[in-house]
Amino acid sequence: MKGIYQCSLRVNISYAFNRDCSIISMLISQQGSVTNGSTVQSHVKIPTDGNSASIPKSKLNCLDRSPSSEANMENNIQEQLNQLDTSHNMNLLFLDPWRPCRGQRTAIKGWLVKLRLCLATLCGIEWYGYAALGISTALLSFLMDFSVTKLIRAHLWLYMKLEGNVLLQFLCWTLYPACLCAFASSFSHNICPFSTGSGIPEVRTMLNGIEMPHYLSLTNMFTKFLGLICTLAAGSTVFLGKVGPFVHLSTMLGAYLGNLCSLTQGKKMKAEAEMLVVASAVGVASCFGAPISGVLFSVEVMSSHFALRHYCPCFFSAAVGALTFRLFSVWSGDGETLGALFKTNFPTALPFYPLEIVLFAFLGLLCGAVSCCYLFCHRWILRLTKTNPFLLKVLMTEKGLYSGLVVFFLALLTFPYSAGQYMASKYTMKQLLASLLDSKQWSPQSHNASVQTEPLLEWSSSGISVFHSLAFFLLMKMWMLVLACTLPLPAGYFMPVFVYGAAIGRLLGEGVAYLSSTERISGLQWKSVNPGGYALAGAAAFSGAATHTLSPVLLAVELTGQFSHAVPILLCTLLANALARHGNRPSFYDALSISKRLPHLPSLGKACPRLSSTPIGQNLGTGWVRLQKAAGPAEVQLAVNTCTDAQIPVVDSHESQKLLGFVLRSELQMFLRHCSAQGMEETLDEVCCIHPASVMLSPHTTVEEAYRVLSLSGAQSLFVADKGRLVGHVTWAEMKRIIESLAEEI
Amino acid sequence: MKGIYQCSLRVNISYAFNRDCSIISMLISQQGSVTNGSTVQSHVKIPTDGNSASIPKSKLNCLDRSPSSEANMENNIQEQLNQLDTSHNMNLLFLDPWRPCRGQRTAIKGWLVKLRLCLATLCGIEWYGYAALGISTALLSFLMDFSVTKLIRAHLWLYMKLEGNVLLQFLCWTLYPACLCAFASSFSHNICPFSTGSGIPEVRTMLNGIEMPHYLSLTNMFTKFLGLICTLAAGSTVFLGKVGPFVHLSTMLGAYLGNLCSLTQGKKMKAEAEMLVVASAVGVASCFGAPISGVLFSVEVMSSHFALRHYCPCFFSAAVGALTFRLFSVWSGDGETLGALFKTNFPTALPFYPLEIVLFAFLGLLCGAVSCCYLFCHRWILRLTKTNPFLLKVLMTEKGLYSGLVVFFLALLTFPYSAGQYMASKYTMKQLLASLLDSKQWSPQSHNASVQTEPLLEWSSSGISVFHSLAFFLLMKMWMLVLACTLPLPAGYFMPVFVYGAAIGRLLGEGVAYLSSTERISGLQWKSVNPGGYALAGAAAFSGAATHTLSPVLLAVELTGQFSHAVPILLCTLLANALARHGNRPSFYDALSISKRLPHLPSLGKACPRLSSTPIGQNLGTGWVRLQKAAGPAEVQLAVNTCTDAQIPVVDSHESQKLLGFVLRSELQMFLRHCSAQGMEETLDEVCCIHPASVMLSPHTTVEEAYRVLSLSGAQSLFVADKGRLVGHVTWAEMKRIIESLAEEI
Repeated sequence: MKGIYQCSLRVNISYAFNRDCSIISMLISQQGSVTNGSTVQSHVKIPTDGNSASIPKSKLNCLDRSPSSEANMENNIQEQLNQLDTSHNMNLLFLDPWRPCRGQRTAIKGWLVKLRLCLATLCGIEWYGYAALGISTALLSFLMDFSVTKLIRAHLWLYMKLEGNVLLQFLCWTLYPACLCAFASSFSHNICPFSTGSGIPEVRTMLNGIEMPHYLSLTNMFTKFLGLICTLAAGSTVFLGKVGPFVHLSTMLGAYLGNLCSLTQGKKMKAEAEMLVVASAVGVASCFGAPISGVLFSVEVMSSHFALRHYCPCFFSAAVGALTFRLFSVWSGDGETLGALFKTNFPTALPFYPLEIVLFAFLGLLCGAVSCCYLFCHRWILRLTKTNPFLLKVLMTEKGLYSGLVVFFLALLTFPYSAGQYMASKYTMKQLLASLLDSKQWSPQSHNASVQTEPLLEWSSSGISVFHSLAFFLLMKMWMLVLACTLPLPAGYFMPVFVYGAAIGRLLGEGVAYLSSTERISGLQWKSVNPGGYALAGAAAFSGAATHTLSPVLLAVELTGQFSHAVPILLCTLLANALARHGNRPSFYDALSISKRLPHLPSLGKACPRLSSTPIGQNLGTGWVRLQKAAGPAEVQLAVNTCTDAQIPVVDSHESQKLLGFVLRSELQMFLRHCSAQGMEETLDEVCCIHPASVMLSPHTTVEEAYRVLSLSGAQSLFVADKGRLVGHVTWAEMKRIIESLAEEI
Repeated sequence: MKGIYQCSLRVNISYAFNRDCSIISMLISQQGSVTNGSTVQSHVKIPTDGNSASIPKSKLNCLDRSPSSEANMENNIQEQLNQLDTSHNMNLLFLDPWRPCRGQRTAIKGWLVKLRLCLATLCGIEWYGYAALGISTALLSFLMDFSVTKLIRAHLWLYMKLEGNVLLQFLCWTLYPACLCAFASSFSHNICPFSTGSGIPEVRTMLNGIEMPHYLSLTNMFTKFLGLICTLAAGSTVFLGKVGPFVHLSTMLGAYLGNLCSLTQGKKMKAEAEMLVVASAVGVASCFGAPISGVLFSVEVMSSHFALRHYCPCFFSAAVGALTFRLFSVWSGDGETLGALFKTNFPTALPFYPLEIVLFAFLGLLCGAVSCCYLFCHRWILRLTKTNPFLLKVLMTEKGLYSGLVVFFLALLTFPYSAGQYMASKYTMKQLLASLLDSKQWSPQSHNASVQTEPLLEWSSSGISVFHSLAFFLLMKMWMLVLACTLPLPAGYFMPVFVYGAAIGRLLGEGVAYLSSTERISGLQWKSVNPGGYALAGAAAFSGAATHTLSPVLLAVELTGQFSHAVPILLCTLLANALARHGNRPSFYDALSISKRLPHLPSLGKACPRLSSTPIGQNLGTGWVRLQKAAGPAEVQLAVNTCTDAQIPVVDSHESQKLLGFVLRSELQMFLRHCSAQGMEETLDEVCCIHPASVMLSPHTTVEEAYRVLSLSGAQSLFVADKGRLVGHVTWAEMKRIIESLAEEI
């Protein structure tokens, strides 16, 4: 066994990425030459969690039962594995006679290895990963914006060209978005059904540790990207946004880059889990060029605790993403320098009067109340799509048709010659928001209402006052948005509520400006009330209330570059949130999670508060494997065959079931090989090192607590012991099963 | 025992606030009338952690061993305690014949109870606490600013009045700050020696769960407040700031308000622990009127994880604090509306050219390098004050004299007729920062350097160029600041590094502006480079690098209200942080923690990385109490007498030491009373409910992991079991002991 293998190797390095992105697998199949006569098949396999590996025994110093800590031991194994991996690649290169350009490839590989070493001296490889994530997400975001702008421009161009023929204009107005959405729907349904919707509920679930491989696949990324372009190109007719799917796209990219980092680095688990959290921040940051709100979003998206080790990576990657996104827009000629996406010109000398704080507080409460109404409607329609047999059938089988019809109906309403003229339907989403954030007052400023000092806006193009058109917009868009949320296509739901909130704020702001300018508020000397400030505060407050978050405050500030209004916006959003969260009501994303039965404990806890306090002992599975310390090769072989967990618990004996600790799966494989080589019947505890379990749970621990300890301790699995007696084994897979079984009770 | 007690009660509700602020104790001593003949003394005592309480047995349904979860059980006890408490107050009021104005007091109390109930319907009582914390901290901050401004103005007025007599001017310039600092030093030394220094290292330690009662006392608050006013009044001569001590002051206020909330609310632990985290955010927010950086600071100040349940309270309280602080400044006539503290007028159309990003990155690296140098000097002087026998003796005995002499020396150097003229020493800290953030270019803008287009500034009043005076300022202030850090008085160290960083940035910015205006950079068409932007970025980067935080980015933005530079500032700070953190070097606050031997694990881990990976089994104490399940009254009495922990572990028998769970201390007292009343010899498990320990540790768990699990699980104590056998009991007190014993090894 101590000899040097020079043998035919069929190395299957199969990375079944257990926790973060299991479906990505990399197979390096190399066939080397046989130089020493004997042909031994050695399977170098990295199991599901990267903690263990079956590697040549002479390399593994764990078998001599050193009392080193588990962490050290894992690191050792990983280091050895890395060395092995690198030397493998190098050796195989030299040995392989069939591949072309051997010399050049060796040279290039050598250079790459040198480059890696050189990069690693400056900082950890993962930091390059974070930078790459930021840059690539920003590139994706820029490309998407670019395509969407072109598609929308094409639509408007066609619509303008058909001026004079209302029927053709009508067909152009309605069929273009309907076809796009029908295509997006069918495409995503056929290629990857997991790509529909926002993606944020799934991202939240994955960030909390639950593994959802389908949501991180390459197909999903491709489908989501294309589908989202179609949805966004349908414009303000369907009134859907970009943020949610973009966070999801960024997470997929993050998962890939995380794998890449772990490949070059070896510290698998850490790099990947971190990359997902970072990716959620980068998603928001690259979408709007707003790094700080990205980081706050990533803090909020966690269920109970935000690990501070993610803080700097999040900021770094978000900064790189935002910088790149803004640089792209500079290079594409959108601006002379790196500016905010919706740059406003609020007056800086006197942004608002101190007493206006009261009005901002009122706006917060108003937005909170409207958001409650919106969320109620949303929950109602979600329930309807799950319970109504007709809708259920249509949504199951005829997704494209459904999307096409719904969007056609929405387009019918927004057609500029019908109701659309009263709700500025010619504006795109961006133009809508930019117009609402305008700092100039729209309503007439003097007693004489007929004197219109401002140039005519799209909002009052139909001749009715801006108050009426804003109110009509709010009334119509409420149910239209709720209806659009049922569309089975990749779409974000954040930007619509942001714009909707801006309209609420604008309405109030215009009212205040009108009243103060016509001196109807006696005693107040408000010369220049800025309705744009109210719109900004309303946008942050309404979107914050709908999603139960506070990061929209920073997003509002970063989108406009206006810091003067930060404190009133924050106050407004806090009050709206207070009202929306009252009574432990689910947020927008919670409702989606509950509707989709995602194993996201905080959401499920809101639907059924009893769930999180269920003792874990009541829900433990029975099919898990344990070994007794005196186990022989037969029992070990059975355990290795039946169980895929990385850590297998060891008990004193099958009668007493006293928990002693755990062994790594890789060590068991080693043990089996050792036994077969020596031909001796040895017991487990004579050969393998039994690692102590550092944290144990009792069966009375609640599911919530177990979930928290599992996610925070960083352990792969936790053992449930009752008075020292092993009664359960909680891994992430088991936790997912438990939560899903709980979800069925709702 | 089931009868109703109507007895003379001497209720001692002694809240020995164990974890958060142990020294605050409230004694409600009420003497009621005897109505039923018998006189029984019933001690209602809330033990150190609020989990348990000895209350009349008939009220406690826990003794009948219901298998309800621990959490429910604790809630029940607390609810019953609340009911008991409320009814107590009411009953005692009616029963008490000696107090005057019985009728009125009853009416007032009744109204208060109604008010409480009314308030509680709107939202939890703790939210009023958060609002009160924000308002009171902002009031403190405003009062402090007000006094400091008056004192500094008085000094300058006197100095101006003495114009013409250099000797008197010299005496006025030097003796005023020297006397103030000598007073601050002696005062704080004599009244409360724990009030010296920044306070942030101690706040960090307390936020991580370690109890440090001396740092939350009323005396400390009073001393710190007065001492800090004196330090700040010494002006830019001593060059010290306000933030750190203010965060500490806010934490003390938070602890008091937390107690108040828990008194009215009953949920003791939660309200207080939350209040401390919130207070750290409010401290920064109220100090500068900057809510968002306050919250980010509070995220960063935690050791490993930020609990999301603190997120909204932090934002709410910080927003209230910042709003109140700004409203105070409006009401005091400082401004027409709520503006930023250091309002700047950066050009908004073209804040910076895209290529300037490279210069900002360079500035970040420069600030990082200078911060490393500064931190090295700081660590060196900290070591010196701990090792040099002379300094040690002086700092131990003659604090006032030392402070006076050092400040006299510093004032000597900053005297405007000596070296002071070259470093703008007439400016206060605020004026220094405001001047550095000026967006106009100071250096001559044309080829002809003699044509000075700008009005003469304090920076070039001595006739030398601004480059020379900035460079001189940087050189001198470096060692003067390090020297000032040794002063034993309440003082903040953040603002000085912020200003210092601004000077670094200004120097670079002026250089760039000079080179671009004189067209020495060929090919670049930079017409209007804003040196103020560089100063802002430098300030954030240098202070961020010195403290290893990123919240200065937001602070820089919030202080100036300039969002246009957010992305370059962020980039700059990230790079500076990367350089400063390289090699796991301790931050400014880490160095203070290590020097003071505070039980703050992350800091100690930086001084000696081996520490945090020490297994907890090696450091467990021996003096802890355990009970066997068959324990009789005698053993229980001994346990109750010798141990103050709220949870006492129960083992199978003293021989086997198998851990069964724990009993609450209050239940043991109940058990003892039960036994003495019944006169029977019963065993523990027959009467008391043995609660299962939900999370257990193994002796191989590292100290760091145990610390994390303890702080995150929310448990009062954790049991260390080796194969089911109880080997240790880790409470917060025990954890503190372990960390302190580890600290001694450094």
